[in-house]
Amino acid sequence: MRNFKYYTPTQVLFGKDTHLQVGTLLKQQGCHKVLIHYGGSSAVRSGLLEEVKASLADAGLEFVTLGGVVPNPRLSKVLEGMELCRRENVDFLLAVGGGSVIDSCKAIGYAVANPWTDVWNFFLKTETPKECLPIGAILTIAASGSEMSNSCVITNEDGWLKRGSIKSDLCRPRFAILNPRLTYTLPQYQTESGCVDILMHTMERYFVNFETMEITDSISEALMQTVIYNARILMKEPQNYNARAEVMWAGSLSHNGLTGCGTDCGDWACHQLEHELGGMFDVAHGAGLAALWGSWARYVYQENPERFAQFAANVFDIPCGTDFQKTALAGIEAMEDFFRSVEMPTNLRELGLILSDEEIHKLAFKCSFEDTRTIGGIRQLNMKDMEKIYLMAR
Amino acid sequence: MRNFKYYTPTQVLFGKDTHLQVGTLLKQQGCHKVLIHYGGSSAVRSGLLEEVKASLADAGLEFVTLGGVVPNPRLSKVLEGMELCRRENVDFLLAVGGGSVIDSCKAIGYAVANPWTDVWNFFLKTETPKECLPIGAILTIAASGSEMSNSCVITNEDGWLKRGSIKSDLCRPRFAILNPRLTYTLPQYQTESGCVDILMHTMERYFVNFETMEITDSISEALMQTVIYNARILMKEPQNYNARAEVMWAGSLSHNGLTGCGTDCGDWACHQLEHELGGMFDVAHGAGLAALWGSWARYVYQENPERFAQFAANVFDIPCGTDFQKTALAGIEAMEDFFRSVEMPTNLRELGLILSDEEIHKLAFKCSFEDTRTIGGIRQLNMKDMEKIYLMAR
Repeated sequence: MRNFKYYTPTQVLFGKDTHLQVGTLLKQQGCHKVLIHYGGSSAVRSGLLEEVKASLADAGLEFVTLGGVVPNPRLSKVLEGMELCRRENVDFLLAVGGGSVIDSCKAIGYAVANPWTDVWNFFLKTETPKECLPIGAILTIAASGSEMSNSCVITNEDGWLKRGSIKSDLCRPRFAILNPRLTYTLPQYQTESGCVDILMHTMERYFVNFETMEITDSISEALMQTVIYNARILMKEPQNYNARAEVMWAGSLSHNGLTGCGTDCGDWACHQLEHELGGMFDVAHGAGLAALWGSWARYVYQENPERFAQFAANVFDIPCGTDFQKTALAGIEAMEDFFRSVEMPTNLRELGLILSDEEIHKLAFKCSFEDTRTIGGIRQLNMKDMEKIYLMAR
Repeated sequence: MRNFKYYTPTQVLFGKDTHLQVGTLLKQQGCHKVLIHYGGSSAVRSGLLEEVKASLADAGLEFVTLGGVVPNPRLSKVLEGMELCRRENVDFLLAVGGGSVIDSCKAIGYAVANPWTDVWNFFLKTETPKECLPIGAILTIAASGSEMSNSCVITNEDGWLKRGSIKSDLCRPRFAILNPRLTYTLPQYQTESGCVDILMHTMERYFVNFETMEITDSISEALMQTVIYNARILMKEPQNYNARAEVMWAGSLSHNGLTGCGTDCGDWACHQLEHELGGMFDVAHGAGLAALWGSWARYVYQENPERFAQFAANVFDIPCGTDFQKTALAGIEAMEDFFRSVEMPTNLRELGLILSDEEIHKLAFKCSFEDTRTIGGIRQLNMKDMEKIYLMAR
């Protein structure tokens, strides 16, 4: 097993009514003026935004608001937030929303705190941030794990490039408020996309080519079983508190580092393949991952069929004999069956994309940074490999 | 399930040779003068202390040393450390050892940073600490989980009272260096006592009387299976790196809060019953827990036989039919079989204690704070209950 670093300083408040404590938490952080950053109108309609403002006012904190963050959050909004924060002397960023809003906060935090460079350079990975404004989150969708993670993903409209930042502990939120009830009103498609994203954060770390830790494996397998079981419940009972809670906590644990202890960097090829889809076609991240995963898995599983067989046995209870190839394939099919059972796509057509050969080529060209990088851990993928996987998924 | 708070800010460096980075880590903490606190001669003999000193010197850090911490660490040593830190203007405490050394550091940290009161008051729980000196740990035994926890336990020689402090995030170590190789030379009895302690930190949180979280349950069950499996390997192969690593990481996870998410405070009666044994008879903590656990479990399991049956099924693969009572008892027996298989005691006699009725009564009298408190969660235990459990364990 590999050496590892584990660092998850985010304070989590989990459960009913916890969002009402946000003013107190912010006060403890010693801040003075807060940017409340949010997405569309649902935070307004649900009354959440008003509750948050009231909690901040009760704590004697000043604040400004900035809404309008969209899925696959945009660089232009980040720059707008940066200007606002500078103008208003904001010293704390509060995300009220899901991964898009949290990631937008992280990018604003980098932009404000590192005036010596263009924030996009942290996504091109040509520069490393030295500071970040402190961030807190009130989560309204279980999916990205950004509420405890060290990464963020932004889409630059100039070229529609969706890129992850350099990973840095600087952007890990100071606190995350997880109230499962805030996710009750999510549309089914978003709920289930979120479940796929959570599974994928675990699988990206799980599928590696070297000896792993038993304890990390069994935590990861338990987490995946929990998500699969509860994602199915949420198809019928979107207001089942326990199911929402299980998925929500799994979402944070799947991306805070716990499921990667001893598995080094993981694979992440699926995420990178999906980022091009998200950048070019603005699809829901989790759905995009579901559409690609089976094709990726079939393309790479022969690099380590034992690992895929372990996954099949321990996540889907598929009897594992000595034929690892067969068990591995059965596991891949079982995951795709699960995707279908929660109405997630298993190919690009089901995702709503009918792509030409040129578009497929462009995806691979962009994903390979114009044929200059490979991606993936269990198997290194060059531009031609990427193109084949996109074609398999078509 | 209950609301919960989760906060584990300790930075973990895990793996081979990680202790050589201690100087760099301390430098990052911005400290100037470090107390290197340690136990007996093993840290000297193994060369570890010299390596630590060299790393600090390389980083340009000043330091003083204080050895002589014993198992069931003493208040007198804490006070000695406090005086030394004040005299030398120490601003960071580095524990090189196991739970006893880390706990001694935590108590010194409280004592130095809260000159307004007697540090023992934090253990009597009549005062709450406002500050603590920062602490780091290089772990040499996997057991206490103190390297990531918010608690510490000290024995006051005046009355031989072993008491846990008020739980406070102030004392959570800033970093923990976990190099499994540093545990290779531990005597078998200490290794296996440590494994029992790790299991018990999980079980104390697991055995509750209300609805829990699936994901926490399955993480806890996976953790217990990992420890049981690897504790057996370590009986034959004390220098098996992977087995040492699995147990070491399980030790930190079992007590950093992860296994308590949604289970509120847990039970902790076994720990409190053992603390009296440790205070009066200076036994190894894990061995003391093993000697008491079966008696405690048989005394309380009927409060929630389904929970004990789930434990039997998911940790020991015992088929669970509808007879929860029978399955519960089989699970208790399986855990005791495990204790025996790693040469841990399952009663006080095997622990080396032949106790009189008067001594049993005194244990219960002290554990109940002179018949003024109850302990336990799954079942509230008063002084008479405690006495019965000690008698069952005799």
